[in-house]
Amino acid sequence: MFTWIGVFAQTPDLMPLPAKYSLNTTSCRITNRFSISIQGNADSRMYSEASRFFQRLSERTGIFFPTWRVTPTSKYSSGGLQIQVLRTGQLVLGEDESYQLQVVDSGILIKANTDIGAIRALETLLQLLGSDTKGYFFRGANIEDAPRFPWRGLLISQPYHFMPMDVIKRTLDAMAAVKMNVLHFYISDDQGYRIESKVYPKLHEMASEGQYFTHAQVKEMIAYAHQRGIRVIPEVDLPGHSTAILYAYPHLASIKRDYTLQDHWGVFDPTIDPTKERTYIFLDSLLTEVASLFPDAYFHIGGDENTGRDWQRNPDIRKFMKDRGLATNLALQNYFNRRVMGILKKCGKTAIGWDEVLMRELDDSVAKKYFEEENFSKLIEPNVPKDLVIQSWRGMEALISSARNGYKSILSKGYYIDLVQPASYHYLTDPVPYRNDVIIPDSEANLNRFESEIIKKLKKGIRLLSEEQEKMILGGEATMWTEHVTAETIDSRIWPRTAAIAERLWSPPQIRDVADMYRRMDIISVQLEFLGSTHIKNTAMLLRRLANQQEVSCLQSVVQYLEPVQGYQRNQQNNFTRFSPYTLMADIAVPDQKAVRDLTKRFSEYAKAKDTVWKKEVRQLLREWIDNDYAVQQLAAPIPALADIAAHSTRLRALASMGLEVLSSPNLKATNIGDWQKKLQDAAIPIGHCELKVVEPLRKLLSNQYPNN
Amino acid sequence: MFTWIGVFAQTPDLMPLPAKYSLNTTSCRITNRFSISIQGNADSRMYSEASRFFQRLSERTGIFFPTWRVTPTSKYSSGGLQIQVLRTGQLVLGEDESYQLQVVDSGILIKANTDIGAIRALETLLQLLGSDTKGYFFRGANIEDAPRFPWRGLLISQPYHFMPMDVIKRTLDAMAAVKMNVLHFYISDDQGYRIESKVYPKLHEMASEGQYFTHAQVKEMIAYAHQRGIRVIPEVDLPGHSTAILYAYPHLASIKRDYTLQDHWGVFDPTIDPTKERTYIFLDSLLTEVASLFPDAYFHIGGDENTGRDWQRNPDIRKFMKDRGLATNLALQNYFNRRVMGILKKCGKTAIGWDEVLMRELDDSVAKKYFEEENFSKLIEPNVPKDLVIQSWRGMEALISSARNGYKSILSKGYYIDLVQPASYHYLTDPVPYRNDVIIPDSEANLNRFESEIIKKLKKGIRLLSEEQEKMILGGEATMWTEHVTAETIDSRIWPRTAAIAERLWSPPQIRDVADMYRRMDIISVQLEFLGSTHIKNTAMLLRRLANQQEVSCLQSVVQYLEPVQGYQRNQQNNFTRFSPYTLMADIAVPDQKAVRDLTKRFSEYAKAKDTVWKKEVRQLLREWIDNDYAVQQLAAPIPALADIAAHSTRLRALASMGLEVLSSPNLKATNIGDWQKKLQDAAIPIGHCELKVVEPLRKLLSNQYPNN
Repeated sequence: MFTWIGVFAQTPDLMPLPAKYSLNTTSCRITNRFSISIQGNADSRMYSEASRFFQRLSERTGIFFPTWRVTPTSKYSSGGLQIQVLRTGQLVLGEDESYQLQVVDSGILIKANTDIGAIRALETLLQLLGSDTKGYFFRGANIEDAPRFPWRGLLISQPYHFMPMDVIKRTLDAMAAVKMNVLHFYISDDQGYRIESKVYPKLHEMASEGQYFTHAQVKEMIAYAHQRGIRVIPEVDLPGHSTAILYAYPHLASIKRDYTLQDHWGVFDPTIDPTKERTYIFLDSLLTEVASLFPDAYFHIGGDENTGRDWQRNPDIRKFMKDRGLATNLALQNYFNRRVMGILKKCGKTAIGWDEVLMRELDDSVAKKYFEEENFSKLIEPNVPKDLVIQSWRGMEALISSARNGYKSILSKGYYIDLVQPASYHYLTDPVPYRNDVIIPDSEANLNRFESEIIKKLKKGIRLLSEEQEKMILGGEATMWTEHVTAETIDSRIWPRTAAIAERLWSPPQIRDVADMYRRMDIISVQLEFLGSTHIKNTAMLLRRLANQQEVSCLQSVVQYLEPVQGYQRNQQNNFTRFSPYTLMADIAVPDQKAVRDLTKRFSEYAKAKDTVWKKEVRQLLREWIDNDYAVQQLAAPIPALADIAAHSTRLRALASMGLEVLSSPNLKATNIGDWQKKLQDAAIPIGHCELKVVEPLRKLLSNQYPNN
Repeated sequence: MFTWIGVFAQTPDLMPLPAKYSLNTTSCRITNRFSISIQGNADSRMYSEASRFFQRLSERTGIFFPTWRVTPTSKYSSGGLQIQVLRTGQLVLGEDESYQLQVVDSGILIKANTDIGAIRALETLLQLLGSDTKGYFFRGANIEDAPRFPWRGLLISQPYHFMPMDVIKRTLDAMAAVKMNVLHFYISDDQGYRIESKVYPKLHEMASEGQYFTHAQVKEMIAYAHQRGIRVIPEVDLPGHSTAILYAYPHLASIKRDYTLQDHWGVFDPTIDPTKERTYIFLDSLLTEVASLFPDAYFHIGGDENTGRDWQRNPDIRKFMKDRGLATNLALQNYFNRRVMGILKKCGKTAIGWDEVLMRELDDSVAKKYFEEENFSKLIEPNVPKDLVIQSWRGMEALISSARNGYKSILSKGYYIDLVQPASYHYLTDPVPYRNDVIIPDSEANLNRFESEIIKKLKKGIRLLSEEQEKMILGGEATMWTEHVTAETIDSRIWPRTAAIAERLWSPPQIRDVADMYRRMDIISVQLEFLGSTHIKNTAMLLRRLANQQEVSCLQSVVQYLEPVQGYQRNQQNNFTRFSPYTLMADIAVPDQKAVRDLTKRFSEYAKAKDTVWKKEVRQLLREWIDNDYAVQQLAAPIPALADIAAHSTRLRALASMGLEVLSSPNLKATNIGDWQKKLQDAAIPIGHCELKVVEPLRKLLSNQYPNN
């Protein structure tokens, strides 16, 4: 599948890696006479994106091109870029995004069936930009590329912390840079309803606190996404997660109570009453309005985390269920879903739902039994329309069950970037988890009740899906739930880790080298920043706010080793609400710190290093931690908001002192060894929702000194 | 005027400084039970701004308040903030913005006649935030404050580089933080027309290249400004600077030619034909539309830099002038202005124009003579309507002539922040330059033909304006012309220097201590960043783009000493256009570098320092420059876009070597002294539109070593 030229020791600095590529030793030099011409059938999108590419090239190289405007009259000249496009691509599922890209010394050729393919090619080309003492060039390459999955999405939720237009736009720019093609725009939940409604204006008037997109803004967002070849899918989460709707229109509720917007995070009881016709009259108008705003053929109706409690509390609803033979809440929800899907069908839309809309509620033992027996029809609700697309968030089994029962599906389990897990975990999560060479990550913590079964089968070489069934899996979606992020921090929760997910969904499945992924991710991360993402630059800004001064490098020296606690640990403390300050250490620290990865590498090489200079440098680093702590304590003493950072800094100093002592003591007693091991263990306990990530590399460093302990 | 308590050695960290204040040693401690209540007559603006204050307080302190939502039911409790407001302020010139603020240990009281006054008070209060080991508090203070001038503006031009909504919003937030109250929104010029027009849609369709504010966006901006007590004044520059209009509607032009949008910067000939009735029919519809979008009572009609050449080229226009006895282009322009003002009057608007609309074109000697004789009526055009407001951009004399002839005026000369001059210069420029204790800066470079006359008169103690005339001067406006800035760099051209202008326009004229201004500006600068301004954080980002890697600290070490060349030097190189990369060293370097000011201080103290540790530190710093250069050259060698920074780094290393040599040689010969003076002279020559600002402090440092040379 790959053509390699032996002289290249590593993969090119591309992310996602193309399906097929070969590099060569030529390069196309860039002068201020560089030109871009477009041939074939292209509309304004292609010209506009080519112009944007040209401008970005100018910004990065500092070359003064006479113009970066690409028009139908722009001529090709030797050493320039020629783009050949057959037709304008449609923003529909499965549209052709393939392209060919050839870079040789005499010029560059992009060939694509659609302009969307050419737009993808431009991102690849910009990543091939290099320089040397003589100037700038594009690296010689021959690329044939196409995505593995047609659905490569990112969900952004608007109800918890509202993300204004500039956040959405810069996210779309960054998505395009890593070839993602679906923005899942999550509109409604217990905390707010975030787009204007002309048919039910109380939705935005009462249930948004002024934080919503107008119709014009929704169109502006969609046009911006369209420009980059990105579809936008709306979600109105129903029938649970609907407090905002019920606050505005309480007559739709299953239970009479005083509804008010939720300020807390979690799963709440308020649920739309699915037994009343007025519910469907309301939803008919509302969903028709939303459907008309979002031109995409898909529409997400939610369906997750309906507690069903409000339904059971209402005798009329219980009677309705009995009368219709709807034995479970899920059966009632399926009735509701079918009605809603009917409305959407009228609007020409295909519905998507979270996996609850398909999967039966079964006891673990029963479910496992069916799964082991591959009795997949028993795992799902009967009578769910076959055109409902399933978004799997609770586990792989929903994906497999969907495919085995003839449903299309999208994977999100494993791509929950709000859980601040490492990119490697997301990267190794594959939507098609049954190939012999593709094993899902075996971290027990991340496996649900079914996934150990899946692994067992995979290890036995059992193929769970046929080739046809495999095609039912459309791709995946990273989910940026915004409970614990604000417009200031969201970028550092999305990027750069989502680039690893983008590669998983675009590149061939065999590309799974984690170390190489990180190498390329660190490069692309910096480039994403040029598009406006704040994931790097806001770290220092947030520290400056807490310190109330410009000079914060001593704080940065600590925070670079801190990572926020993973998973939902933060949610388990109930004091977080919409009013909490998301400006603190746990918001400043980012997952997957580069400094931690670098340190791990550095420390792991210490043991085998014969070079005493190298060893000296490691000891020097430990001494710097000690010195740095002095500066931190000075700065932090009168500033309570820095107390947690100061506490981690104290630990860092203590660990450094200990480390220096151990490294300089060739013959420690076992009791001493136990002592430093205990200290490391203590230092691993989170403070302020953050873990000090030097502990593990340091433990390994010291253990190498005492390999038998 | 000031009440000082002796224990406070310096001014409080406030900017602008209040009109009257006293500090005390109490403080109001902030707990999570902090509350805000509002009494009197306030509408949603007051509640919303109080809520925003509360949220910002939470973000900076990390305190988990149960809520930061302030509503009419919010109750005061001891230690909280009580706001008393008599009425909702109007966004009109001269509205009451005064307030009283008392902070004592038992709580805080804000009293204001209008909510706008209370909003100003909230910004002062937030600047009084402090902390110690025991927690956060507001400093005890007793403040009675009101602005000196009613017009404290910032102009942002949209035609050159378009500034999208997020730039405007964060600028409005920062303006509010330093109590500015006018955004001058400059819509139209030779390079583009930047708002939607429903009456003449070609304006945005043809003449914006898609970069414009829709009507909805204009309203969004105005609502955002209104929320912060900021007026928004539109400018449609007429009859020159009108290529964009003539490109869309060439029948309005004075000369038939192929009009196209300008990509270059400068003054161009295309001018609207003021002799045709169709011009006024067009302007009637257009200005009525724009006037209806911007609710403010003032409307700017431009009037600057009309070359008049196209008028002279057109025999019909020449004939028109002759027939009407309009002897000069200026007379014709005044005819045009009166027609345009008639249209605006119908819309209920008062017109503003740049000083060309009033000042006669006179030979220098004649003008100077009139000025010396205080024959001010001869300096202006006759028959200019008295209700035209003059914006003085070419010199103080327009301000004085306006006031002496009964015209209201606004000063911008001296506040041209696009010229990247130091804040001290802007700070010392006073719109009322005739007080004995207020001398305009005597930097010859910044004086025009009249200003030396003004200084001469001031020195003689001559009062140029009576108290009544003085009141005709409404205030001033910083002008952010956007030829050489983009959305990435505009913040660093506006902030923090504009905070110094804001203080000049708000605070009493006696507050003129430049060192203290810089001390406070550096503090406020960091706080402005919390509102979204990128003036600090984008420096590193821009360097990362050029370096294409994350680690750029060695580059920052050089750039912190670089300042872009002042004035219009950059314009004089004709290769700058809309397509130029504004991502280079001169865009990354900022005016008035803090590091340069710190260095100057440090070096100046070297000579008198008896402390050898101190001297050692200075020499250590010079050695760091040498070491740093090694890192810079390594990094920059294969990256052409870093060549200019590398060149400055080379200089820095050479200067450091030389400095170390001189400092360690107690008895240099005169020839050697001449040698290093020559080297310093050479190092002062700009490279890449930047000056290495260590030269002057270093020269002083070395000169102190050899005081006789």
